Amino acid sequence: MTNPKIRYAMVGGGRGAFIGAVHRIAARMDDRYELVAGALSANPENAKLSAADLHIAADRAYTSYEDMIREEKKRADGIQVVVIVTPNHMHFPVAKACLQAGIDVICDKPVTRTLEEALELEQLVKSSGCFFGLTHNYSGYPLVRYARELVSQGKLGNLRVVQVEYPQEWLTEAADENNKQASWRTDPARSGLGGCLGDIGTHAFQLARFISQQKLIAVSSDLTSFVEGRQVDDNVHAMLRFENGLKGMLWSSQVAPGCENGLRIRLYGDKASIEWAQENPNELWFTELNKPRQRVTRRGDIGSDIAARGMRTPGGHPEGYLEGFANLYKDIADILDARSKGEKHFLQDWVPDIETGVEGMRFIQAVIDSSRQDGVWVKL
Amino acid sequence: MTNPKIRYAMVGGGRGAFIGAVHRIAARMDDRYELVAGALSANPENAKLSAADLHIAADRAYTSYEDMIREEKKRADGIQVVVIVTPNHMHFPVAKACLQAGIDVICDKPVTRTLEEALELEQLVKSSGCFFGLTHNYSGYPLVRYARELVSQGKLGNLRVVQVEYPQEWLTEAADENNKQASWRTDPARSGLGGCLGDIGTHAFQLARFISQQKLIAVSSDLTSFVEGRQVDDNVHAMLRFENGLKGMLWSSQVAPGCENGLRIRLYGDKASIEWAQENPNELWFTELNKPRQRVTRRGDIGSDIAARGMRTPGGHPEGYLEGFANLYKDIADILDARSKGEKHFLQDWVPDIETGVEGMRFIQAVIDSSRQDGVWVKL
Amino acid sequence: MTNPKIRYAMVGGGRGAFIGAVHRIAARMDDRYELVAGALSANPENAKLSAADLHIAADRAYTSYEDMIREEKKRADGIQVVVIVTPNHMHFPVAKACLQAGIDVICDKPVTRTLEEALELEQLVKSSGCFFGLTHNYSGYPLVRYARELVSQGKLGNLRVVQVEYPQEWLTEAADENNKQASWRTDPARSGLGGCLGDIGTHAFQLARFISQQKLIAVSSDLTSFVEGRQVDDNVHAMLRFENGLKGMLWSSQVAPGCENGLRIRLYGDKASIEWAQENPNELWFTELNKPRQRVTRRGDIGSDIAARGMRTPGGHPEGYLEGFANLYKDIADILDARSKGEKHFLQDWVPDIETGVEGMRFIQAVIDSSRQDGVWVKL
Amino acid sequence: MTNPKIRYAMVGGGRGAFIGAVHRIAARMDDRYELVAGALSANPENAKLSAADLHIAADRAYTSYEDMIREEKKRADGIQVVVIVTPNHMHFPVAKACLQAGIDVICDKPVTRTLEEALELEQLVKSSGCFFGLTHNYSGYPLVRYARELVSQGKLGNLRVVQVEYPQEWLTEAADENNKQASWRTDPARSGLGGCLGDIGTHAFQLARFISQQKLIAVSSDLTSFVEGRQVDDNVHAMLRFENGLKGMLWSSQVAPGCENGLRIRLYGDKASIEWAQENPNELWFTELNKPRQRVTRRGDIGSDIAARGMRTPGGHPEGYLEGFANLYKDIADILDARSKGEKHFLQDWVPDIETGVEGMRFIQAVIDSSRQDGVWVKL
Repeated sequence: MTNPKIRYAMVGGGRGAFIGAVHRIAARMDDRYELVAGALSANPENAKLSAADLHIAADRAYTSYEDMIREEKKRADGIQVVVIVTPNHMHFPVAKACLQAGIDVICDKPVTRTLEEALELEQLVKSSGCFFGLTHNYSGYPLVRYARELVSQGKLGNLRVVQVEYPQEWLTEAADENNKQASWRTDPARSGLGGCLGDIGTHAFQLARFISQQKLIAVSSDLTSFVEGRQVDDNVHAMLRFENGLKGMLWSSQVAPGCENGLRIRLYGDKASIEWAQENPNELWFTELNKPRQRVTRRGDIGSDIAARGMRTPGGHPEGYLEGFANLYKDIADILDARSKGEKHFLQDWVPDIETGVEGMRFIQAVIDSSRQDGVWVKL
Repeated sequence: MTNPKIRYAMVGGGRGAFIGAVHRIAARMDDRYELVAGALSANPENAKLSAADLHIAADRAYTSYEDMIREEKKRADGIQVVVIVTPNHMHFPVAKACLQAGIDVICDKPVTRTLEEALELEQLVKSSGCFFGLTHNYSGYPLVRYARELVSQGKLGNLRVVQVEYPQEWLTEAADENNKQASWRTDPARSGLGGCLGDIGTHAFQLARFISQQKLIAVSSDLTSFVEGRQVDDNVHAMLRFENGLKGMLWSSQVAPGCENGLRIRLYGDKASIEWAQENPNELWFTELNKPRQRVTRRGDIGSDIAARGMRTPGGHPEGYLEGFANLYKDIADILDARSKGEKHFLQDWVPDIETGVEGMRFIQAVIDSSRQDGVWVKL
Repeated sequence: MTNPKIRYAMVGGGRGAFIGAVHRIAARMDDRYELVAGALSANPENAKLSAADLHIAADRAYTSYEDMIREEKKRADGIQVVVIVTPNHMHFPVAKACLQAGIDVICDKPVTRTLEEALELEQLVKSSGCFFGLTHNYSGYPLVRYARELVSQGKLGNLRVVQVEYPQEWLTEAADENNKQASWRTDPARSGLGGCLGDIGTHAFQLARFISQQKLIAVSSDLTSFVEGRQVDDNVHAMLRFENGLKGMLWSSQVAPGCENGLRIRLYGDKASIEWAQENPNELWFTELNKPRQRVTRRGDIGSDIAARGMRTPGGHPEGYLEGFANLYKDIADILDARSKGEKHFLQDWVPDIETGVEGMRFIQAVIDSSRQDGVWVKL
Repeated sequence: MTNPKIRYAMVGGGRGAFIGAVHRIAARMDDRYELVAGALSANPENAKLSAADLHIAADRAYTSYEDMIREEKKRADGIQVVVIVTPNHMHFPVAKACLQAGIDVICDKPVTRTLEEALELEQLVKSSGCFFGLTHNYSGYPLVRYARELVSQGKLGNLRVVQVEYPQEWLTEAADENNKQASWRTDPARSGLGGCLGDIGTHAFQLARFISQQKLIAVSSDLTSFVEGRQVDDNVHAMLRFENGLKGMLWSSQVAPGCENGLRIRLYGDKASIEWAQENPNELWFTELNKPRQRVTRRGDIGSDIAARGMRTPGGHPEGYLEGFANLYKDIADILDARSKGEKHFLQDWVPDIETGVEGMRFIQAVIDSSRQDGVWVKL
């Protein structure tokens, strides 16, 4: 018996936004969700037009998330999940309101603007009993999950060194005022702690954390704002110390000409290493000491259930960013279906949650603290 | 004003099928279609279960396409388009029935089992006035379209040499009887003319034809069935002569260990060359004579409207097979919307149609004829 | 006890030449040779100056190879080997004179201008008992030799398909009269049979022959001269049939913008495949059916004596064209040392010889014959 | 008029050594040097046999460098240059003795075991008036020099970020006592300050310094010895601050499975970036902001005299480690020839010298100091 589609609403993501459309495609890919309501923009006209674009009924096109929550709670066919794709500073109030109303949440990253908010949200998630998923989408790539399994299986041996980086070029010059994306992301009031750090550095950290499964214990960093007048960092240099002796470096930058979306990780153990780059996500390099590099590709016979379930085509048919993102949505659908039957789904260990969000904020805070103290090692 | 979704039905594509699911995701990606009916399998039980999987109402889950066409014609909200994703030998009868009933068709390739059928279908498309789209999906990739524009703009100069290839490994050994995909594709009764030739050689040819915009005028070929007992070719070697002096080679194979879905084209003019590979579809190499190779990436500021309209994310966020496929669906939606207003949409020049299908069958026939005559050049 | 250096002379290779300098570096690399005489140019002034450049004593700087052979035969410390690096049409007369005088020969490829000359030379080599080495240098690369061993060991299984290519861009436009290299290579009187075919097509063929160890039995080809007024072919398309069912395609071109020296081979058996490209010679891709691609690198622990002996540095320290070339010189030194003791060295099976040269000329002749007969399969 | 060959002697580099053979090939490549004497090993038997291998006359095969210097000074045809290829701890005494005897020196890196020795040597070089060249060979690669020119020409704009790394795998496990290379390099008494840091970290630093032309002003670092019982560092993490606002990260490691000799640099300015990797030295990536990446290859028409003079073959004929190394030798030959005429050659600005050596030791010392103080920024 096929489960009915999950009824969801979106907050943010109206015309002119970027990540909202990505979430919608991700939700659509496997036909597990139905977009039935939205508070797509604080601008009423935009909210209305955007809703019409998306086949949302006019009476469910709200202009405030508060209205939406209140009205939808009254409906028998009301929303089950809210997807939050606003600028960062709005994540917290929207998520809080949803949780207090007993509505499940899927939230874009970073989870909040400050660590304090994240901690408060963590309590709310626990007390509400609601589901809270955080779209650190890069952990949805099948080969990223496969990499995590290789580590769990001991294929790399004892972990020693992790080099993770995430360079982009798009903020190399001062942001154009008319560039909506650039403008809020370089405004500390809306982006929250850290500019480049919060926007993409946190993805890099989460990727290292997710694959290595080691907790970060200390960080030494050097943040820079290269572009004149920029109020947030645009380059992050950090040295990392994890549990169990793993050490690393993290570089993220938004002033790196030639780099589009260069998230990449290399992880070395005493037996083998892995290497994966987001721009070429269908291959993972696995190399045992003194052996040839192996180009493992995303394909069904890879020998990993968790990886295989996130594949929609055979090897050689490239799957990308949207499919990786959609994997989180598919997993969350499974988790929600299980929860509706009172069960816990094993996929909860694979989908980033509020704890991931809190850890991310702790990382951001520690990097900022270290940089302010000229690189002293800050413990987490 | 948003256009209503297009109501479509699918023939083939039930549980256990491959390409049907791909078409459905492609149709879903941009939310322009609604799957409302299906004759998903000749097996009644499979047809029914498959329909339920896909949220198709029970009364529109048909077990024969004839029934479906007849019943749907009676409904005010009946199907507008039929998507044909059966094994090759069924393309023709299903398409014929649809066209005769005045229903638009989206059909997987190769268009038919024989050239004769293709020619008959061509007449039917003309006489019916219906839309007929052929999913040579590789022409949906933004950078493939960009490549075509570079040629049109004369950036390559006079075209001289095209090297196109499409190797796979999956039929290196005798097909397992239980492998549904392998079994019909190696059965001449169901796959039609050519094995590897019809299955993927025709994609390679279409790609060269699409980008170069030159008609093929002659072919000299050498077909082989390497695997013992195989009734269709599994390796295609061909030399090509196009209009205007362009010459080429085409290699397609399904017995090439290490190759997953290696469609790749290189096109050389007297001024510059391009190179594109399907497994890495977000980059195109463009090189002017004696200049450095340029890695052009799929990104919005590439300077091409046709390419940009097929992008859903910024550069560096890899888009792949499903997105390229979805571009055909999106384009067809635009074309159908325009047709419903009596207009011709410029995208009709970009979406493979029945003529493409006929050309593909002529190519297949010529390759077979040449190989049978030990490589004599066969004119088209 | 270290063997004394081998005394050699060079014919051709004066100022303005290309390949002569390459041979000299190759001979120098391992310090096994001493350049003691030369007929470096037909131009007396150039011959003299070129000899002085190379520390050749003035009285051994000859202006004709006939003089050189005659005078050197009189000396107790006379030359032991002549290296022939002239334009192709002079290979035959110089080699003939050397062999008749009992002097060993190292000759650049193609061995002669015509098949008849090659056959005559073959007889002379046999009757003279002299050593004759042909510098098909690409077979000197360690990983090419390793590839050959993989085939011998059955690692690829039964060979099925070979795709070999050698594109260049440097003759895309009409050759500049002042370009010495371009001018003789596009002059049939000096280059001999085939333009691009003889210059680089023959390298591609030899590489396929060397690694696969299969004899060519038939060829179907299409030669083109794209550049207006060019008297020799500048693009070669050919389909190949080897012994034991191996089939292939060969493409070589000198009108391919973006290609520098793109010799590349892919060889598929029923168990595995290999891929190697000259521009990146320190890696070989080896892939077993349905397994990840392995990037085998040039390093000492590769498990192959023949490969390891052609390495001068550890893995990761790139070795290139000159080192590959030098390997032939090193091997020939070992062979000559063995011959001086009346022994046959196993390396004779690895160094191209007069038979390789004759096979190369047969290949060239067959390609030309097939193309003239519009692609009919010509047997060898 | 051709200059006579430069007579040189080698200290170290007997049988079983690694880098000595590299220096000899480098010296041989362009035929500008003659090896006439040697103190190749402290072991008399090895010294004698090694000399015979290399065609050194028995009476010039010394067992101590002191003897060699003394005896060679007596000869009219005595040595002009000494090449020092011993373990690091011997660089200083040998170089000192040479300089005091008025003999020019070519020395492997790092220049000495300690900064104090380096500073003393700097004084000796100045007071002696002798030539002193340091073989930081990676600066001999044509494209590294080209990169430096791009920076000088302002093609990158203002420099912002440099990411340099040099991972290897060969010391991932405890060194085998019988591995001569591993054994002295992990012995602080012979390797000097820093293990991995001195061995390869110093190459990475020099590469960044050479191309960026910015002085390092401060470093914050984290050194690790991952392998149990290892007395020197085997992994280096460092953050760097250069003049003029350039910031960077440096990673070098000898415990990174899958890495052979992975020296690689990426340098970002506000206009463009470059990227170069030692294992693929014939290509340099140059990317202007928001433009396609350009793959610049090593070829004569690159538009750079300094790059072109270090090329021996056309583009597409890969040149590697030995050729890059040989470029230093060729340059030094030109410099020495000029010095013999009392002239200063412009190449002195391109060949690493004693100042480079001192800067390298300052870098090593600062990294060690910072790491000992838990990452505090240490100024240079």
